[in-house]
Amino acid sequence: MGIIDNLTAMDDLSEFLNLVKQNVDTALDRLIPGAEEEPARLHSAIRWSLFAGGKRIRPALVFASGTAFGASQKELSTTAAAIEMIHTYSLIHDDLPAMDDDDLRRGKPTCHKQFDEATAILAGDVLQTLAFKAIAEDEALSADIRTKLIGLIASAAGTPNGMVAGQQLDLDAEGENLTIDEIERIHRSKTGALIIVSAMAGALIGKASNDELTAVEQYAQNLGLLFQVTDDLLDITAATESLGKTAGKDISSEKATYPKLLGIDATAKLANELSDKACRALSALQRDTTILKKLAEMLLNRKR
Amino acid sequence: MGIIDNLTAMDDLSEFLNLVKQNVDTALDRLIPGAEEEPARLHSAIRWSLFAGGKRIRPALVFASGTAFGASQKELSTTAAAIEMIHTYSLIHDDLPAMDDDDLRRGKPTCHKQFDEATAILAGDVLQTLAFKAIAEDEALSADIRTKLIGLIASAAGTPNGMVAGQQLDLDAEGENLTIDEIERIHRSKTGALIIVSAMAGALIGKASNDELTAVEQYAQNLGLLFQVTDDLLDITAATESLGKTAGKDISSEKATYPKLLGIDATAKLANELSDKACRALSALQRDTTILKKLAEMLLNRKR
Repeated sequence: MGIIDNLTAMDDLSEFLNLVKQNVDTALDRLIPGAEEEPARLHSAIRWSLFAGGKRIRPALVFASGTAFGASQKELSTTAAAIEMIHTYSLIHDDLPAMDDDDLRRGKPTCHKQFDEATAILAGDVLQTLAFKAIAEDEALSADIRTKLIGLIASAAGTPNGMVAGQQLDLDAEGENLTIDEIERIHRSKTGALIIVSAMAGALIGKASNDELTAVEQYAQNLGLLFQVTDDLLDITAATESLGKTAGKDISSEKATYPKLLGIDATAKLANELSDKACRALSALQRDTTILKKLAEMLLNRKR
Repeated sequence: MGIIDNLTAMDDLSEFLNLVKQNVDTALDRLIPGAEEEPARLHSAIRWSLFAGGKRIRPALVFASGTAFGASQKELSTTAAAIEMIHTYSLIHDDLPAMDDDDLRRGKPTCHKQFDEATAILAGDVLQTLAFKAIAEDEALSADIRTKLIGLIASAAGTPNGMVAGQQLDLDAEGENLTIDEIERIHRSKTGALIIVSAMAGALIGKASNDELTAVEQYAQNLGLLFQVTDDLLDITAATESLGKTAGKDISSEKATYPKLLGIDATAKLANELSDKACRALSALQRDTTILKKLAEMLLNRKR
């Protein structure tokens, strides 16, 4: 700890992201049993996926939002790490043969390819368990805040409007011709909910008012959709090699995507609009939201 | 609610178990989205497994222990239901082709047979999420108790000493010649931890003292092992038809079991000793522990 002394005054996004990554990786290392501890295969599999080079976008949102409201890194670290653990559990399970059946993730073998399917199922299961345990036992926060965070994060990860619900809707929709509203419903749950709760968690820890929480939610709703839209664009435009996963897979498997429905140009325009809306929502806040705005710009312009 | 008016004074075990089952099924129905709510396939799959005729042993322990310490049914219901949700998630995932590959559970098709593998993975995932959400949002308990319960239950369900760790150790051990100590280590984690935490959760909600918690823990440690030992015995002696799962499977798949290592007679003797030890641990308590003792007797003499 102690790496980030004053995130609030920071306006260099790449420096901010580096510091968040160091901070959250330290927290994750503390929260997950060592790779040599029994059952070693399980802990190795967890660490394989957790430290596979993720960009830590969700922890960055927890920190960017939290520091805008004056929360300390000590108050934010465990929650940021817990949300990343839930995100990673969902990636491990999404990659399974019965789900998206992916062999590569961030350029490395997926958990079930590197280990085995049973171990990957258990690694995902227990990452979720450890995430809620971490928040429940986080002494930097009051018991009241901890229960609120667990309730919010579980709603975002669960059903009927959370991540797992979105994954089920996505599976159910394969081969179907979806409308843009149906696609949005899927993405709002599947990826949007956890992104929204990341920003909300930071604001909650920073004791934001209800009006402020509403503004953060509006920002994050647009950001979550922006994330999915640019992901769909990248999937088409990037080559397999540079992306580190099998490019073009979503179209070949007939998954509903924005470019498939709107075309590439209109999808790029939509991304611009979402980024603008996200930033406009922040103008209601009398806070330094520089980093939150730069995160939206980064997602709009990302190349991977 | 209101079904159980005075569990404390109750000494008829089968009546107690019936009332617990009604109470916990009502709570589960409240905590899980309706089968018709979207994504309907996911919610149907959850309900298929959750209401498949489980005996609700863990909720019974929460209620038996909780009422011994004066907790009300209102304080105990959600936690009892949440622990059953975690137990059910583990059954759904254990039955998957990549794990134990079971087609039948309690005489009915397993979740992935009735629905599909992806849905079963997601149903298990989200049952865990909903369990922690339920406790985090349980207004019958203080925020302080809720965080303690979530921490304890997550430890029991997680790693390095919880349920998922035990399942991994069990998978790792297939085909190996284990010692009795190694078998015990597996069972203590795989099934024992969640049984222990069920009894502990009730006592915690009933504000038991540290000495009382220790006595409850000793009782539940022996009970948890008793549960596994009699399960191993049943697996050999019961026919597939009456058991509702594929009998003899553990021996044919070379899983380590007590009867395999000790023989049937010595295993039956061990079961008697564990039941005695469990009941002796209760004698330290100045409480009415009739139902807790009868639960140990029931597990010792169970036929399924």
